[in-house]
Amino acid sequence: MTISMYQASAPRFVNMLKNLSAILDKAQAYADAKKLDHTVFTSYRFYPDMLPFTRQIQIACDSARGAMARLAGVEIPKHEDVEQTFPELKARIAKTIAFIEEFKPAQIDGTEDKAVTFKARGKDTTFQGMQFLLGFAYPNFYFHVTTAYNMLRHNGVEIGKWDFLGTP
Amino acid sequence: MTISMYQASAPRFVNMLKNLSAILDKAQAYADAKKLDHTVFTSYRFYPDMLPFTRQIQIACDSARGAMARLAGVEIPKHEDVEQTFPELKARIAKTIAFIEEFKPAQIDGTEDKAVTFKARGKDTTFQGMQFLLGFAYPNFYFHVTTAYNMLRHNGVEIGKWDFLGTP
Repeated sequence: MTISMYQASAPRFVNMLKNLSAILDKAQAYADAKKLDHTVFTSYRFYPDMLPFTRQIQIACDSARGAMARLAGVEIPKHEDVEQTFPELKARIAKTIAFIEEFKPAQIDGTEDKAVTFKARGKDTTFQGMQFLLGFAYPNFYFHVTTAYNMLRHNGVEIGKWDFLGTP
Repeated sequence: MTISMYQASAPRFVNMLKNLSAILDKAQAYADAKKLDHTVFTSYRFYPDMLPFTRQIQIACDSARGAMARLAGVEIPKHEDVEQTFPELKARIAKTIAFIEEFKPAQIDGTEDKAVTFKARGKDTTFQGMQFLLGFAYPNFYFHVTTAYNMLRHNGVEIGKWDFLGTP
């Protein structure tokens, strides 16, 4: 018994993206209850040169669908980064989940050693499939989901770690 | 070709813990250059009822070594939560890395379906090995490493996402 590349990718990304979407529901409810503009939250940055909340969600989505597409060797569809409100960000997540759920295990399984090349910090970088998924895509994905969570938490939204973990 | 449970655990936890340790070096250098007490950073919380920086590091360590120990079926050694300074927190990480590096692949491989039971939110919870590793231990581990990173970044420490990602 071992883990397949599909098992380690699609269901894991989808699970966390659903948790993230539910967290956005709580953020929206909080903002609406306090009559606060969504952009107070969605434009928030932890530091002037750090990306705002909207970009954290967009990059979380892009890292998950990019991982699936790169492993399968299909083109990554362009998603414009235009979301500002919680419902718009939730739609971005839903679109990402739908994209990921289209992949069949046969497209992903067996890609452990596949060379995955993409531009990172401006230059072509090549990883092997497993190294790409576990060593790059996972930490990058979790980085942005957690950062989005932390930004909401810091701004008073009533969420806890089990909202993040969901149902494993 | 597939991924073994060992490949998906020990080297991944160790890699991120080394990145985290290097981030603490940068935090210490920043604090020392500005003549700031380490505890200004290590006691920082994003919200009054959220755990402080020290606990983020401690729990990141505990989630990694707990995952290894639970999969292998060995006792989790007690580490007292007493660290306050960056060197103390780095020592906690080093102790955790040493613990993880003692595991042999044969202790971890084949645990995909093993029942892993532990107390979560006060009640016994059982996961299967792969579900435990990918669905609980990973997100929990990355949650705390990322939160520690965000706390430092928010407080001005000059770090970037590649400090977090390191060398996948």
